[in-house]
Amino acid sequence: MPAKRANVVIAQGGGPTAVINSSLYGVVRGMSEGLDDSARIWGARGGIVGVFDEHWVDLCKPQQSLWDEVAHSPGAALGSCRKRLADGEAEAAVRIFQKKEVRYFFYIGGNDSMDTALQIGRAAESLNYELHTVGIPKTIDNDLMGTDHCPGFGSASRYFAQSCVDLGADVRSLPTPVSILEVMGRNAGWLTAATMLARDEPDDAPHLIYVPEVPLVREKFLADVRDIYDKQGWVVVTVSEGLKDENGQFLGEQRIEAIRDGFDHALPGDVAATLARLVASELEIRARSEKPGLCGRASALLASTTDRTEALNVAHFAALKALEGETRFMAALHRDSDSPYRVHYETVPLTQVANLERLLPFEYLTPQRNDLVKEYRNYVQPLIGGSLLRHAH
Amino acid sequence: MPAKRANVVIAQGGGPTAVINSSLYGVVRGMSEGLDDSARIWGARGGIVGVFDEHWVDLCKPQQSLWDEVAHSPGAALGSCRKRLADGEAEAAVRIFQKKEVRYFFYIGGNDSMDTALQIGRAAESLNYELHTVGIPKTIDNDLMGTDHCPGFGSASRYFAQSCVDLGADVRSLPTPVSILEVMGRNAGWLTAATMLARDEPDDAPHLIYVPEVPLVREKFLADVRDIYDKQGWVVVTVSEGLKDENGQFLGEQRIEAIRDGFDHALPGDVAATLARLVASELEIRARSEKPGLCGRASALLASTTDRTEALNVAHFAALKALEGETRFMAALHRDSDSPYRVHYETVPLTQVANLERLLPFEYLTPQRNDLVKEYRNYVQPLIGGSLLRHAH
Repeated sequence: MPAKRANVVIAQGGGPTAVINSSLYGVVRGMSEGLDDSARIWGARGGIVGVFDEHWVDLCKPQQSLWDEVAHSPGAALGSCRKRLADGEAEAAVRIFQKKEVRYFFYIGGNDSMDTALQIGRAAESLNYELHTVGIPKTIDNDLMGTDHCPGFGSASRYFAQSCVDLGADVRSLPTPVSILEVMGRNAGWLTAATMLARDEPDDAPHLIYVPEVPLVREKFLADVRDIYDKQGWVVVTVSEGLKDENGQFLGEQRIEAIRDGFDHALPGDVAATLARLVASELEIRARSEKPGLCGRASALLASTTDRTEALNVAHFAALKALEGETRFMAALHRDSDSPYRVHYETVPLTQVANLERLLPFEYLTPQRNDLVKEYRNYVQPLIGGSLLRHAH
Repeated sequence: MPAKRANVVIAQGGGPTAVINSSLYGVVRGMSEGLDDSARIWGARGGIVGVFDEHWVDLCKPQQSLWDEVAHSPGAALGSCRKRLADGEAEAAVRIFQKKEVRYFFYIGGNDSMDTALQIGRAAESLNYELHTVGIPKTIDNDLMGTDHCPGFGSASRYFAQSCVDLGADVRSLPTPVSILEVMGRNAGWLTAATMLARDEPDDAPHLIYVPEVPLVREKFLADVRDIYDKQGWVVVTVSEGLKDENGQFLGEQRIEAIRDGFDHALPGDVAATLARLVASELEIRARSEKPGLCGRASALLASTTDRTEALNVAHFAALKALEGETRFMAALHRDSDSPYRVHYETVPLTQVANLERLLPFEYLTPQRNDLVKEYRNYVQPLIGGSLLRHAH
């Protein structure tokens, strides 16, 4: 089996998470177990861009102590990128791999990165070059198809749910009556929905949750806020950064839509600030907004231990499957039960993942579509790795 | 000494902090030690407003286990308020105290609350009623006169500095080249300045720090960002929410200035979002903003152990001084040395604190006034209670 003596390239794409480097370590550990000492394991710097630049670092060399530190660090240790492949680039990547005798390519990323991996896998096949192309799931948005959930999501869920507990303790005690917490998530509301975990007693924050799958109707939103305010005098609302109105327009500032990222998605504006101004002007209730933003995906202190373990294990599983000869797959998590929480790992073809987006199913929403049902709590609770820190009041 | 058999009222004013309830517990513990069993210790709900409503709760009753939980909870356990006394209200408060045989009034708060305490103390004197009126310092803004620093500040400093470490790890690894982190602080830049602690190596975040004591010149700001961007390709900036331009105008959205809080200060808008749009439009560099907002003063997980201990101890000290017969004072922290860090507690007359504001001295700023000198690090480092969690890169 010549492939087992061949070289490896690993890259990290898209937005980092708190556990993205645990995935990296999982691949390195798995491949180290299966390859002989002559094999090189490289990390491409800056995602797929680093593949083309041949800006590769040797991942066999680091000591265990450094790995322990790296695996627990947020931010992509190799550097990341936002880039779609242009015509001919998949073939160009394969030729570089061929030149360096790379037989295994692992891309740790979200749905765009899975597409990149798939294209490279197909190009290798058409060039008749044996390359094992593997996707490792990673996204706080939890929007990858084919997997119960995505590494990174549990940690971000823990961060935003804990922030919502803390925010509730503050707002409850001081008459800043309305606070709107903005949560990351452009199209998929999984992460915003996870703030429901902050609620332990009926009047706990969050009182209203709005996800981007449901167009926001301003009058309905204002009536919802008014209703809670009249009932208890304070309101904590959580909203996805990607909320859109009935016309499909982002609710944040329009000006920022002119700025586009590398994938040519419009960047959402500051939806929480926009809604806070709406509450203040229309309801004449003092309102403010909080937006931890990138901090929510970069906190090692608030990372979920379950998420970290799974990030490492599913990546390790992927490496072993590649060594067994599988290719053009993403490693995935399959949930066997909620309670006790149990998962196993499996492979799904990249064709079933690439470029697709898994939105929050409507059956997780209450009929009013401004809150989540208990089935969603059952889904997300095990992923955050233990209880939140709750406060007396 | 009849006063020692008399009753006690404690209230919490202004914005909560992560350790405001440690202060509450400190007062209760101190007074419990000095008063006999017949004395009542009441907490007024909702700050000074609760004094007038006579909405008081018995603080002698809670078990130690509940106190342990309350003391570690963010948010004001008694509830808080933003209210200035109107004419005659100080006298009205004294008459209520007289009716209930209250001889000790403790107000845990910032400079506005200190003014309330002073007015009530003066009214008691003019009404010839013996009342011990005591201020307990509490503000994340660190802007009280007469004390080396304020309980609440160290914990918020830890939160924002750690958030800046985490944000740096994320932004360094992904080409979202500019992130602007908004830090609480309307007029005083102490807390924003504390983000300097995130920097361990020269290229670590934050790269630029702007405090409200220095008017922001847009062209200078853009040139600063451009310069760092050209040098290293990524920039993390921290800014105070209260940044103003050369004309003294808040840099955030103007519309929100119409909304005013109970003290009739204009509320600042979203300065980080405003500056991110400025960078994107003027420099054509992708920029975004993060604004943890209230979450930054409500995190028990990121509270400083030093801050928590001091919050309790200075409040306990205040109780003992009141029992010794002192009145119309604020308990304060006096720093004896930076390294080893040592403080002692003392009293300062409320007249030297009330309504005054201690801004960040210019000698802590670099000549460019977009960063802090090492003397400020020496000042703030001991207050955050140990090292930050740093990350590999």
